[in-house]
Amino acid sequence: MLSKSQISFLKSLQQKKARKTQGFFLAEGIKSISEFINSPYQIETIYCVRTSQYKWTDQSQEFNIEEVTPADLAKFSSLTTPQEIIALIKIPQWPVLETKTLQYSFSIVLDGVQDPGNLGTIIRTADWFGISNIICSEDTVDVYNPKVVQATMGSLARTTVCYVDLAAFLKKTELPIYGALLNGQSIYQTNFDTEGLIILGNEGNGIRPEIQKLIRHPVTIPLFGKAESLNVAIANAVFCSEISRNKIV
Amino acid sequence: MLSKSQISFLKSLQQKKARKTQGFFLAEGIKSISEFINSPYQIETIYCVRTSQYKWTDQSQEFNIEEVTPADLAKFSSLTTPQEIIALIKIPQWPVLETKTLQYSFSIVLDGVQDPGNLGTIIRTADWFGISNIICSEDTVDVYNPKVVQATMGSLARTTVCYVDLAAFLKKTELPIYGALLNGQSIYQTNFDTEGLIILGNEGNGIRPEIQKLIRHPVTIPLFGKAESLNVAIANAVFCSEISRNKIV
Repeated sequence: MLSKSQISFLKSLQQKKARKTQGFFLAEGIKSISEFINSPYQIETIYCVRTSQYKWTDQSQEFNIEEVTPADLAKFSSLTTPQEIIALIKIPQWPVLETKTLQYSFSIVLDGVQDPGNLGTIIRTADWFGISNIICSEDTVDVYNPKVVQATMGSLARTTVCYVDLAAFLKKTELPIYGALLNGQSIYQTNFDTEGLIILGNEGNGIRPEIQKLIRHPVTIPLFGKAESLNVAIANAVFCSEISRNKIV
Repeated sequence: MLSKSQISFLKSLQQKKARKTQGFFLAEGIKSISEFINSPYQIETIYCVRTSQYKWTDQSQEFNIEEVTPADLAKFSSLTTPQEIIALIKIPQWPVLETKTLQYSFSIVLDGVQDPGNLGTIIRTADWFGISNIICSEDTVDVYNPKVVQATMGSLARTTVCYVDLAAFLKKTELPIYGALLNGQSIYQTNFDTEGLIILGNEGNGIRPEIQKLIRHPVTIPLFGKAESLNVAIANAVFCSEISRNKIV
């Protein structure tokens, strides 16, 4: 049985400010939670409607399991139709991603992406294509926003996401810097290196001018039809696919 | 000034049943509406907060413009933050897409896609890559759902979307039938024809077994990382990109 103040604490984690102060976020649904159990993330408590329903045999960590009523669970769920299980997870303090960590692979760099669904889908897609590091400008939507966590479909458990002063970070790195711009080289004619950074910009405004200046390889997804723009999660998918196809073709 | 019954009629168009009975749908925002004005779609009325604000010089059709109060507009808007302009548009009766119409290009075929955002993004992405025909199973989400219209970002105005008995349609066509499946040939090693159909399935269940049987070229986006699945709008983007790159590489 949860107390009023426990529910109020859990509910507060829907807000970024509370997540930052408290150092926790929530993940909902058994599939997503299973991924977090076998990951570097540290689970504090799992709240579920019937504790007997869940058995974790391959779990790599200890955590509390607490039985709650569906009505209580609905109070701190962020879903319209709450699932029967929600985990309280510690926000990890990732070490700052250095060039050394990012070598020999590609990483996605996001400049001001605002939509939680987009960030979640970007992480899920990156995970499909074997990209595990995402570097975000400080004004990118918070990755522990419940809608982001949900949209990653568990892929967040395998991904390192960090927030940095993007201009400073890019000035320091020696990795090849690619960026999705409208006036670059066709992505189909670009010879991607075996490592590098791919910068994608904000939904409405694209990449900020000061960040654009730091792009050494502007790359464009050619327009074959008439749409005015591509969704940023879609552009990310086309980049991830093109980088990956080079590995096997 | 709108009457109560006018507002109630406009509001009802958020529901599929009312759209079907009335034969109309709504599009919101100046960008999207501008695309519909210069399209085969027939606009009945444009409702806007300040009529003086909008001047269409290149319009190819006549329509009524009616000034409404922001409060009235909010009553039939489907957006949390309503834009200042909403168009009432006739649902077109597209002729059934015959093989003849679909020749010399690719079309996207959707088997039970349920999420409005996914369908909208699929249409927007297809439009970027020059694909203008979308064929949907009868249980695919309605394309005139306000969330779908919104997510297409105006691309719907350039796209023909029809709903058919998919099995019957596929049995009749002579076009090459490709399908996104988990056990197919790698998309990076597939030689796409210059025309054909690409089948994508439902978010949770993929392509139905009876439709799978009709696929002549099963194609897979190889997994490089660990995600369990790709979002259907993302899979669509990878297919659109691969088909297009063949045209220029």
